[in-house]
Amino acid sequence: MKLNILGCYSATPRTFTNPTAQVLEINNHLFLIDCGEGTQVQLRRHKIKFNRIKHIFISHLHGDHCFGLVGLISTFRLLGREADLHIYAPKGLKESILLQLKLGNSWTNYNLIFHELTNNKSELIFEDEKVTVETIPLDHRVYTNGFLFREKEGDRKLDMNAVLNEGIDVAYYRKLKQGADVPNLKGVIVRNELMTKPAAPPKSYAFCSDTAYNESIIPLISSVTALYHESTFLDQHIELAAPTKHSTAKQAAAIAKLANVEQLILGHYSTRYDNLDAFKEEAETIYSPVYLADDGKVFDI
Amino acid sequence: MKLNILGCYSATPRTFTNPTAQVLEINNHLFLIDCGEGTQVQLRRHKIKFNRIKHIFISHLHGDHCFGLVGLISTFRLLGREADLHIYAPKGLKESILLQLKLGNSWTNYNLIFHELTNNKSELIFEDEKVTVETIPLDHRVYTNGFLFREKEGDRKLDMNAVLNEGIDVAYYRKLKQGADVPNLKGVIVRNELMTKPAAPPKSYAFCSDTAYNESIIPLISSVTALYHESTFLDQHIELAAPTKHSTAKQAAAIAKLANVEQLILGHYSTRYDNLDAFKEEAETIYSPVYLADDGKVFDI
Repeated sequence: MKLNILGCYSATPRTFTNPTAQVLEINNHLFLIDCGEGTQVQLRRHKIKFNRIKHIFISHLHGDHCFGLVGLISTFRLLGREADLHIYAPKGLKESILLQLKLGNSWTNYNLIFHELTNNKSELIFEDEKVTVETIPLDHRVYTNGFLFREKEGDRKLDMNAVLNEGIDVAYYRKLKQGADVPNLKGVIVRNELMTKPAAPPKSYAFCSDTAYNESIIPLISSVTALYHESTFLDQHIELAAPTKHSTAKQAAAIAKLANVEQLILGHYSTRYDNLDAFKEEAETIYSPVYLADDGKVFDI
Repeated sequence: MKLNILGCYSATPRTFTNPTAQVLEINNHLFLIDCGEGTQVQLRRHKIKFNRIKHIFISHLHGDHCFGLVGLISTFRLLGREADLHIYAPKGLKESILLQLKLGNSWTNYNLIFHELTNNKSELIFEDEKVTVETIPLDHRVYTNGFLFREKEGDRKLDMNAVLNEGIDVAYYRKLKQGADVPNLKGVIVRNELMTKPAAPPKSYAFCSDTAYNESIIPLISSVTALYHESTFLDQHIELAAPTKHSTAKQAAAIAKLANVEQLILGHYSTRYDNLDAFKEEAETIYSPVYLADDGKVFDI
């Protein structure tokens, strides 16, 4: 998995900082998560191929998470896109996007498929052979979901030396990969673990932004490989966190610790702070490892 | 008058080119004309004070002319704006903006006043003591207006030596500035032109984008100080101009010549062209002077 941070600052796009957008590469998918104003320029700047984006996940309908979407949809049209585009977003975005396309008499010539989210409980919203995506209901000023991206358990790897030594017919290879014990040429059942190795452990990524400190997400994100949790504020502004339904760096770290995640990535910083180091320092008093998102940064997960 | 080009490329925002937006400084107003995606970042980059923008004119509802507006309106709110904001735009934009603000539960705390345009004839849409703004109906794929910004005829300038020599009471100064003949202390009427000089000639700026070649605008823009006319294409792609209802550089120049304008500024270039010089060269075969708009360029008019 690879996570491309296109923008990770809160509130407004500025000369050198961008609102939320990131691209998760997972099993040949390029999933776009949130789409603040200017996301299409950030995609170009970081040389991410537009036509590989087939699924867009929008957390909530504040502008810094979605105002770039209609422009991206329009640009896809101008570039002659033919592939379907799936958009998973709170109910209402469909109406808004379609109204804007109608006013510009600019209907897409590709299929635009909206999956409108209204559920307050976690739900499975995408699944293929190798990946699932579930919502993570968050606590913000408007209806908001985080997203949990999970690889499925992969096939076991064949130890070809052992397989050949045991004399297993090729017809049994698929069952072997699935973990079954199979007969050799003499008809004797051979135990699977003598001929296979476990699959690489499946990875998972949880995107949680924007949200107040909210322990109810912990069972959903338990032990994920990487957690991106918003940290709009430092401790010195903790009194702003609850009323705006945002989190501090320490609160993000407390969630990471309680959920026993493997790593924490912080982002969605208020633009009032010139230096991000304090976010890492404050979070690390509670949990480690902590990584700081920044525009243009790429994380190998 | 000063014209700040924030963006002058067609279709999509790219790494180094911006869709249409410009700021006209005229008699202490900062008028924003069109507002493609990323306009708020361009305003910051060029250090234009957000709170001096009180009137925004939108030509039409294609994304490259209006997708940055909702973000700018939201940023004004986040920055604590209190001043009224007037938006002159085709009918429909109000519904779209209000829907987006509603979905984000982000109503402005300042007055947002929409002036919805539906007229197919030129109309006066703004007037104060010193400036008027009229629409210029254009011929594009959706309902589109250009805008004509005009200074009003100013007061005549007093020649104070002559005024004092003639012995004119101060109570008559205002009438003198307005061009009237007035009595001196002996009751003799003195001719105005002996004591005043003409006001500086009023300036005017016509913004015409997007539009097909359209001679019907000529009476409206006759003799303006500066005409900004779109030139999406060069001659080599003239066959694209009519069906897309855009213009070539030569067509823009032909309009400038027929309207006897003082200068022509070209813009709204297709991003297929790497070099803009050919736009100027082709236009100058028909009319001069021709200036090329470019992002970040400032014209003193």
